[in-house]
Amino acid sequence: MRAAVDLAQSYRLLNHGPTVLVSAAHGGQRNIMAAAWNMALDFAPPKIAVVLDKSTYTRELVEASGHFCINVPCRAQAGVVLALGQLSGRELQADAEGGDKFARFGLNTFAASHGEAPLLQGCVAWLECRLMPEPRNQQLYDLFIGEVAAAWADTRVFADGHWRYDDRSDPALRTLHYVAGGHFFAIGEAFEAQAARPQR
Amino acid sequence: MRAAVDLAQSYRLLNHGPTVLVSAAHGGQRNIMAAAWNMALDFAPPKIAVVLDKSTYTRELVEASGHFCINVPCRAQAGVVLALGQLSGRELQADAEGGDKFARFGLNTFAASHGEAPLLQGCVAWLECRLMPEPRNQQLYDLFIGEVAAAWADTRVFADGHWRYDDRSDPALRTLHYVAGGHFFAIGEAFEAQAARPQR
Repeated sequence: MRAAVDLAQSYRLLNHGPTVLVSAAHGGQRNIMAAAWNMALDFAPPKIAVVLDKSTYTRELVEASGHFCINVPCRAQAGVVLALGQLSGRELQADAEGGDKFARFGLNTFAASHGEAPLLQGCVAWLECRLMPEPRNQQLYDLFIGEVAAAWADTRVFADGHWRYDDRSDPALRTLHYVAGGHFFAIGEAFEAQAARPQR
Repeated sequence: MRAAVDLAQSYRLLNHGPTVLVSAAHGGQRNIMAAAWNMALDFAPPKIAVVLDKSTYTRELVEASGHFCINVPCRAQAGVVLALGQLSGRELQADAEGGDKFARFGLNTFAASHGEAPLLQGCVAWLECRLMPEPRNQQLYDLFIGEVAAAWADTRVFADGHWRYDDRSDPALRTLHYVAGGHFFAIGEAFEAQAARPQR
Protein backbone atom coordinates (compact mmCIF):
# COMPACT_ATOMS: atom_id res chain seq x y z
CA MET A 1 0.00 0.00 0.00
CA ARG A 2 1.10 3.53 -0.77
CA ALA A 3 0.83 6.26 1.85
CA ALA A 4 1.75 9.92 1.98
CA VAL A 5 4.99 10.74 3.78
CA ASP A 6 5.06 13.80 6.03
CA LEU A 7 7.00 16.44 4.10
CA ALA A 8 9.15 17.11 7.18
CA GLN A 9 10.32 13.49 7.04
CA SER A 10 10.62 13.18 3.26
CA TYR A 11 14.42 13.65 3.41
CA ARG A 12 14.56 10.21 5.06
CA LEU A 13 13.57 8.61 1.77
CA LEU A 14 16.95 9.67 0.34
CA ASN A 15 19.09 10.01 3.46
CA HIS A 16 20.59 6.51 3.23
CA GLY A 17 21.80 7.16 -0.32
CA PRO A 18 19.68 5.09 -2.73
CA THR A 19 20.07 5.26 -6.49
CA VAL A 20 16.91 6.82 -7.90
CA LEU A 21 14.97 7.21 -11.13
CA VAL A 22 14.09 10.73 -12.28
CA SER A 23 10.90 11.08 -14.30
CA ALA A 24 9.58 14.11 -16.15
CA ALA A 25 6.96 15.02 -18.74
CA HIS A 26 6.15 17.96 -20.97
CA GLY A 27 3.90 18.56 -23.97
CA GLY A 28 2.74 14.95 -24.16
CA GLN A 29 6.30 13.55 -23.97
CA ARG A 30 7.69 11.75 -20.93
CA ASN A 31 10.92 10.11 -19.90
CA ILE A 32 12.69 8.47 -16.98
CA MET A 33 16.41 8.05 -16.21
CA ALA A 34 18.61 6.60 -13.48
CA ALA A 35 20.52 8.93 -11.13
CA ALA A 36 22.88 7.73 -8.43
CA TRP A 37 23.98 11.32 -7.81
CA ASN A 38 21.20 12.69 -5.62
CA MET A 39 20.88 13.94 -2.05
CA ALA A 40 18.58 15.70 0.36
CA LEU A 41 19.37 19.42 0.60
CA ASP A 42 17.04 20.84 3.26
CA PHE A 43 14.45 19.84 5.85
CA ALA A 44 11.80 22.59 5.70
CA PRO A 45 10.72 23.27 3.13
CA PRO A 46 12.27 20.00 1.97
CA LYS A 47 14.62 20.31 -0.98
CA ILE A 48 16.67 17.79 -2.90
CA ALA A 49 19.56 17.98 -5.38
CA VAL A 50 20.15 15.70 -8.36
CA VAL A 51 22.63 15.62 -11.26
CA LEU A 52 21.09 15.51 -14.75
CA ASP A 53 23.60 15.32 -17.57
CA LYS A 54 23.19 17.62 -20.58
CA SER A 55 22.82 14.62 -22.87
CA THR A 56 19.65 13.40 -21.14
CA TYR A 57 16.16 13.82 -22.54
CA THR A 58 14.78 13.89 -18.99
CA ARG A 59 16.71 17.09 -18.33
CA GLU A 60 15.07 18.77 -21.34
CA LEU A 61 11.63 17.81 -20.00
CA VAL A 62 12.51 19.01 -16.49
CA GLU A 63 13.66 22.38 -17.79
CA ALA A 64 10.59 22.75 -19.99
CA SER A 65 8.02 21.70 -17.39
CA GLY A 66 9.56 22.92 -14.13
CA HIS A 67 8.69 19.64 -12.43
CA PHE A 68 10.25 16.23 -11.89
CA CYS A 69 9.69 13.17 -9.75
CA ILE A 70 12.24 11.15 -7.83
CA ASN A 71 11.27 7.46 -7.82
CA VAL A 72 13.15 5.19 -5.38
CA PRO A 73 13.42 1.77 -7.03
CA CYS A 74 14.01 -1.56 -5.35
CA ARG A 75 16.03 -4.67 -6.06
CA ALA A 76 13.28 -6.26 -8.13
CA GLN A 77 13.79 -3.40 -10.61
CA ALA A 78 17.61 -3.52 -10.89
CA GLY A 79 17.62 -4.67 -14.53
CA VAL A 80 15.23 -1.90 -15.50
CA VAL A 81 17.21 0.70 -13.52
CA LEU A 82 20.37 -0.31 -15.35
CA ALA A 83 18.63 -0.17 -18.73
CA LEU A 84 17.07 3.23 -17.96
CA GLY A 85 20.53 4.50 -17.08
CA GLN A 86 22.16 3.17 -20.24
CA LEU A 87 19.58 3.98 -22.89
CA SER A 88 18.63 7.53 -23.83
CA GLY A 89 14.95 8.24 -24.25
CA ARG A 90 15.92 10.46 -27.18
CA GLU A 91 17.61 7.59 -29.04
CA LEU A 92 14.77 5.25 -28.24
CA GLN A 93 12.19 7.58 -29.71
CA ALA A 94 14.27 8.04 -32.85
CA ASP A 95 14.59 4.31 -33.56
CA ALA A 96 12.33 2.36 -35.89
CA GLU A 97 10.23 0.81 -33.15
CA GLY A 98 9.02 4.09 -31.66
CA GLY A 99 7.49 4.42 -28.21
CA ASP A 100 8.95 5.95 -25.06
CA LYS A 101 10.89 4.17 -22.32
CA PHE A 102 7.70 3.39 -20.39
CA ALA A 103 6.10 1.71 -23.38
CA ARG A 104 9.24 -0.09 -24.51
CA PHE A 105 10.05 -1.49 -21.06
CA GLY A 106 6.43 -2.20 -20.16
CA LEU A 107 6.52 0.20 -17.21
CA ASN A 108 3.31 1.15 -15.47
CA THR A 109 2.86 4.55 -13.91
CA PHE A 110 0.46 6.50 -11.77
CA ALA A 111 -0.28 10.22 -11.72
CA ALA A 112 1.54 12.67 -9.46
CA SER A 113 -0.47 15.07 -7.31
CA HIS A 114 1.70 17.98 -8.57
CA GLY A 115 2.82 18.30 -12.19
CA GLU A 116 2.67 15.89 -15.11
CA ALA A 117 5.74 13.75 -14.38
CA PRO A 118 4.63 10.12 -14.09
CA LEU A 119 5.40 8.04 -10.99
CA LEU A 120 6.72 4.53 -11.61
CA GLN A 121 4.81 1.63 -10.13
CA GLY A 122 6.85 -0.96 -8.29
CA CYS A 123 9.15 1.62 -6.69
CA VAL A 124 9.17 1.90 -2.89
CA ALA A 125 9.12 5.70 -2.51
CA TRP A 126 8.40 8.80 -4.57
CA LEU A 127 9.13 12.52 -4.17
CA GLU A 128 7.30 15.02 -6.38
CA CYS A 129 9.49 18.07 -6.94
CA ARG A 130 9.09 21.56 -8.25
CA LEU A 131 12.27 22.73 -10.01
CA MET A 132 13.96 25.70 -8.33
CA PRO A 133 15.69 27.19 -11.37
CA GLU A 134 19.40 27.84 -10.79
CA PRO A 135 20.83 28.49 -14.26
CA ARG A 136 24.48 28.61 -13.16
CA ASN A 137 24.28 25.26 -11.31
CA GLN A 138 22.37 23.65 -14.16
CA GLN A 139 24.78 24.86 -16.84
CA LEU A 140 28.07 24.55 -14.97
CA TYR A 141 27.49 21.49 -12.78
CA ASP A 142 24.42 19.73 -14.29
CA LEU A 143 23.04 20.25 -10.77
CA PHE A 144 19.28 20.58 -10.34
CA ILE A 145 17.50 21.61 -7.14
CA GLY A 146 13.90 20.77 -6.40
CA GLU A 147 11.48 21.60 -3.63
CA VAL A 148 9.53 18.55 -2.53
CA ALA A 149 5.81 19.16 -3.02
CA ALA A 150 4.58 15.67 -2.05
CA ALA A 151 6.13 12.38 -0.98
CA TRP A 152 4.88 8.81 -0.89
CA ALA A 153 6.16 5.44 0.24
CA ASP A 154 5.25 1.77 0.11
CA THR A 155 4.05 1.05 3.64
CA ARG A 156 5.51 -2.46 3.49
CA VAL A 157 8.99 -0.92 3.77
CA PHE A 158 8.56 2.68 5.03
CA ALA A 159 6.21 3.60 7.85
CA ASP A 160 6.11 6.13 10.71
CA GLY A 161 9.03 8.02 9.23
CA HIS A 162 11.42 5.07 9.01
CA TRP A 163 12.51 2.40 6.58
CA ARG A 164 11.31 -0.89 8.06
CA TYR A 165 13.71 -3.36 6.46
CA ASP A 166 14.38 -6.33 8.70
CA ASP A 167 14.95 -10.09 8.44
CA ARG A 168 11.33 -10.66 7.49
CA SER A 169 11.30 -8.06 4.70
CA ASP A 170 11.08 -9.19 1.11
CA PRO A 171 14.69 -8.84 -0.18
CA ALA A 172 13.29 -7.75 -3.55
CA LEU A 173 11.96 -4.56 -1.92
CA ARG A 174 15.32 -3.33 -0.61
CA THR A 175 16.63 -0.05 -2.03
CA LEU A 176 19.37 -0.11 -4.67
CA HIS A 177 22.81 1.48 -4.29
CA TYR A 178 24.66 1.52 -7.59
CA VAL A 179 28.43 1.54 -8.00
CA ALA A 180 29.36 1.08 -11.70
CA GLY A 181 29.39 -1.50 -14.49
CA GLY A 182 26.13 -3.20 -13.52
CA HIS A 183 27.38 -3.67 -9.95
CA PHE A 184 24.83 -2.85 -7.23
CA PHE A 185 24.40 -3.21 -3.52
CA ALA A 186 21.07 -3.69 -1.79
CA ILE A 187 20.69 -1.80 1.46
CA GLY A 188 21.67 -4.11 4.31
CA GLU A 189 21.26 -4.64 8.01
CA ALA A 190 19.46 -2.04 10.12
CA PHE A 191 20.88 -1.15 13.52
CA GLU A 192 20.65 1.49 16.22
CA ALA A 193 23.82 3.20 17.41
CA GLN A 194 24.48 4.88 20.74
CA ALA A 195 26.46 8.10 20.40
CA ALA A 196 30.03 7.78 21.69
CA ARG A 197 30.73 10.03 24.69
CA PRO A 198 33.58 12.53 24.70
CA GLN A 199 36.49 11.67 26.99
CA ARG A 200 37.69 14.18 29.54
CA MET B 1 46.28 -1.32 3.88
CA ARG B 2 45.58 2.06 2.31
CA ALA B 3 46.05 2.61 -1.42
CA ALA B 4 45.51 5.52 -3.76
CA VAL B 5 42.30 5.41 -5.80
CA ASP B 6 42.48 6.46 -9.45
CA LEU B 7 40.87 9.92 -9.56
CA ALA B 8 38.70 8.83 -12.50
CA GLN B 9 37.17 6.15 -10.24
CA SER B 10 36.96 8.21 -7.05
CA TYR B 11 33.23 8.88 -7.58
CA ARG B 12 32.68 5.19 -6.84
CA LEU B 13 33.62 5.79 -3.22
CA LEU B 14 30.41 7.84 -2.83
CA ASN B 15 28.22 6.45 -5.60
CA HIS B 16 26.38 3.96 -3.35
CA GLY B 17 25.35 6.74 -0.95
CA PRO B 18 27.33 6.34 2.27
CA THR B 19 27.10 8.78 5.16
CA VAL B 20 30.45 10.55 5.45
CA LEU B 21 32.53 12.61 7.86
CA VAL B 22 33.80 15.99 6.68
CA SER B 23 37.07 17.18 8.20
CA ALA B 24 38.74 20.56 7.89
CA ALA B 25 41.53 22.57 9.51
CA HIS B 26 42.72 26.17 9.55
CA GLY B 27 45.12 28.20 11.65
CA GLY B 28 45.90 25.34 14.01
CA GLN B 29 42.22 24.48 14.58
CA ARG B 30 40.55 21.36 13.20
CA ASN B 31 37.13 19.77 13.26
CA ILE B 32 35.11 16.89 11.84
CA MET B 33 31.35 16.47 11.35
CA ALA B 34 28.92 13.91 9.99
CA ALA B 35 27.18 14.53 6.64
CA ALA B 36 24.61 12.20 5.13
CA TRP B 37 23.87 14.77 2.43
CA ASN B 38 26.68 14.25 -0.04
CA MET B 39 27.01 13.07 -3.63
CA ALA B 40 29.40 12.77 -6.53
CA LEU B 41 28.98 15.64 -8.99
CA ASP B 42 31.35 14.93 -11.88
CA PHE B 43 33.74 12.33 -13.26
CA ALA B 44 36.66 14.32 -14.71
CA PRO B 45 37.90 16.29 -13.05
CA PRO B 46 36.07 14.57 -10.19
CA LYS B 47 33.87 16.83 -8.10
CA ILE B 48 31.62 16.19 -5.12
CA ALA B 49 28.86 18.14 -3.36
CA VAL B 50 28.13 18.18 0.37
CA VAL B 51 25.77 20.11 2.63
CA LEU B 52 27.40 21.98 5.55
CA ASP B 53 24.98 23.80 7.83
CA LYS B 54 25.73 27.37 8.84
CA SER B 55 25.87 26.35 12.50
CA THR B 56 28.83 24.02 11.96
CA TYR B 57 32.38 24.83 12.94
CA THR B 58 33.65 22.61 10.12
CA ARG B 59 32.03 24.95 7.59
CA GLU B 60 33.93 27.91 9.04
CA LEU B 61 37.20 26.00 8.67
CA VAL B 62 36.34 24.93 5.11
CA GLU B 63 35.57 28.51 4.08
CA ALA B 64 38.75 29.81 5.72
CA SER B 65 41.11 27.14 4.37
CA GLY B 66 39.58 26.30 0.98
CA HIS B 67 40.05 22.60 1.64
CA PHE B 68 38.13 19.73 3.20
CA CYS B 69 38.31 15.95 3.34
CA ILE B 70 35.52 13.44 2.95
CA ASN B 71 36.12 10.42 5.20
CA VAL B 72 33.93 7.36 4.55
CA PRO B 73 33.37 5.68 7.93
CA CYS B 74 32.39 2.08 8.59
CA ARG B 75 30.08 0.25 10.94
CA ALA B 76 32.73 -0.04 13.65
CA GLN B 77 32.61 3.76 13.89
CA ALA B 78 28.81 4.24 14.04
CA GLY B 79 28.79 5.51 17.64
CA VAL B 80 31.49 8.06 16.83
CA VAL B 81 29.72 9.13 13.61
CA LEU B 82 26.53 9.74 15.59
CA ALA B 83 28.39 11.73 18.24
CA LEU B 84 30.26 13.79 15.64
CA GLY B 85 26.92 14.61 14.05
CA GLN B 86 25.27 15.64 17.31
CA LEU B 87 28.00 17.61 19.04
CA SER B 88 29.35 20.89 17.68
CA GLY B 89 33.10 21.34 17.72
CA ARG B 90 32.46 24.96 18.69
CA GLU B 91 30.54 23.97 21.86
CA LEU B 92 33.10 21.34 22.72
CA GLN B 93 35.96 23.81 22.60
CA ALA B 94 34.05 26.27 24.75
CA ASP B 95 33.37 23.80 27.55
CA ALA B 96 35.51 23.41 30.67
CA GLU B 97 37.36 20.33 29.47
CA GLY B 98 38.83 21.91 26.32
CA GLY B 99 40.25 19.94 23.42
CA ASP B 100 38.85 19.40 19.95
CA LYS B 101 36.64 16.53 18.76
CA PHE B 102 39.66 14.44 17.79
CA ALA B 103 41.20 14.75 21.25
CA ARG B 104 37.93 14.30 23.13
CA PHE B 105 36.85 11.21 21.19
CA GLY B 106 40.35 9.74 21.03
CA LEU B 107 40.40 9.88 17.22
CA ASN B 108 43.65 9.24 15.37
CA THR B 109 44.38 10.96 12.10
CA PHE B 110 46.90 10.96 9.30
CA ALA B 111 48.01 13.79 7.04
CA ALA B 112 46.37 14.57 3.71
CA SER B 113 48.54 14.98 0.62
CA HIS B 114 46.71 18.25 -0.20
CA GLY B 115 45.77 20.81 2.45
CA GLU B 116 45.77 20.63 6.24
CA ALA B 117 42.46 18.81 6.84
CA PRO B 118 43.19 15.64 8.83
CA LEU B 119 42.10 12.22 7.59
CA LEU B 120 40.47 9.94 10.14
CA GLN B 121 42.04 6.55 10.78
CA GLY B 122 39.66 3.60 10.81
CA CYS B 123 37.60 4.92 7.90
CA VAL B 124 37.47 2.85 4.70
CA ALA B 125 37.89 5.62 2.10
CA TRP B 126 38.98 9.24 1.90
CA LEU B 127 38.62 12.03 -0.69
CA GLU B 128 40.78 15.15 -0.37
CA CYS B 129 38.94 18.12 -1.83
CA ARG B 130 39.72 21.65 -2.87
CA LEU B 131 36.74 23.95 -2.29
CA MET B 132 35.31 25.46 -5.48
CA PRO B 133 33.83 28.64 -4.01
CA GLU B 134 30.20 29.19 -4.99
CA PRO B 135 28.97 31.94 -2.67
CA ARG B 136 25.31 31.74 -3.74
CA ASN B 137 25.11 27.97 -3.20
CA GLN B 138 26.93 28.20 0.11
CA GLN B 139 24.76 31.01 1.46
CA LEU B 140 21.38 29.99 0.04
CA TYR B 141 21.57 26.18 0.15
CA ASP B 142 24.51 25.39 2.50
CA LEU B 143 25.81 23.54 -0.55
CA PHE B 144 29.57 23.15 -0.98
CA ILE B 145 31.33 21.86 -4.08
CA GLY B 146 34.82 20.40 -4.04
CA GLU B 147 37.21 19.13 -6.66
CA VAL B 148 38.79 15.85 -5.64
CA ALA B 149 42.57 16.24 -5.49
CA ALA B 150 43.40 12.79 -4.12
CA ALA B 151 41.49 9.69 -3.02
CA TRP B 152 42.37 6.69 -0.89
CA ALA B 153 40.71 3.47 0.19
CA ASP B 154 41.26 0.55 2.52
CA THR B 155 42.25 -2.27 0.17
CA ARG B 156 40.43 -4.81 2.36
CA VAL B 157 37.13 -3.40 1.10
CA PHE B 158 37.87 -1.37 -2.06
CA ALA B 159 40.24 -2.58 -4.79
CA ASP B 160 40.51 -2.31 -8.57
CA GLY B 161 37.84 0.38 -8.65
CA HIS B 162 35.15 -1.58 -6.76
CA TRP B 163 33.88 -2.12 -3.25
CA ARG B 164 34.70 -5.73 -2.41
CA TYR B 165 32.10 -6.48 0.26
CA ASP B 166 31.07 -10.11 0.25
CA ASP B 167 30.14 -12.88 2.68
CA ARG B 168 33.72 -13.13 3.89
CA SER B 169 34.11 -9.37 4.56
CA ASP B 170 34.32 -8.15 8.13
CA PRO B 171 30.81 -6.72 8.81
CA ALA B 172 32.42 -3.98 10.90
CA LEU B 173 34.02 -2.56 7.71
CA ARG B 174 30.75 -2.03 5.81
CA THR B 175 29.83 1.55 4.93
CA LEU B 176 27.20 3.38 6.98
CA HIS B 177 23.92 4.73 5.60
CA TYR B 178 22.20 6.95 8.15
CA VAL B 179 18.47 7.61 8.34
CA ALA B 180 17.63 9.55 11.53
CA GLY B 181 17.41 9.19 15.30
CA GLY B 182 20.46 6.93 15.68
CA HIS B 183 19.04 4.55 13.06
CA PHE B 184 21.56 3.29 10.48
CA PHE B 185 21.84 0.73 7.75
CA ALA B 186 25.04 -1.03 6.78
CA ILE B 187 25.50 -1.54 3.06
CA GLY B 188 24.18 -4.97 2.15
CA GLU B 189 24.41 -7.66 -0.46
CA ALA B 190 26.40 -7.06 -3.65
CA PHE B 191 24.96 -8.25 -6.94
CA GLU B 192 25.36 -7.83 -10.69
CA ALA B 193 22.34 -6.87 -12.77
CA GLN B 194 21.74 -7.48 -16.47
CA ALA B 195 20.10 -4.55 -18.19
CA ALA B 196 16.50 -5.20 -19.16
CA ARG B 197 15.91 -5.15 -22.93
CA PRO B 198 13.35 -2.91 -24.55
CA GLN B 199 10.29 -4.67 -25.93
CA ARG B 200 9.25 -4.08 -29.53
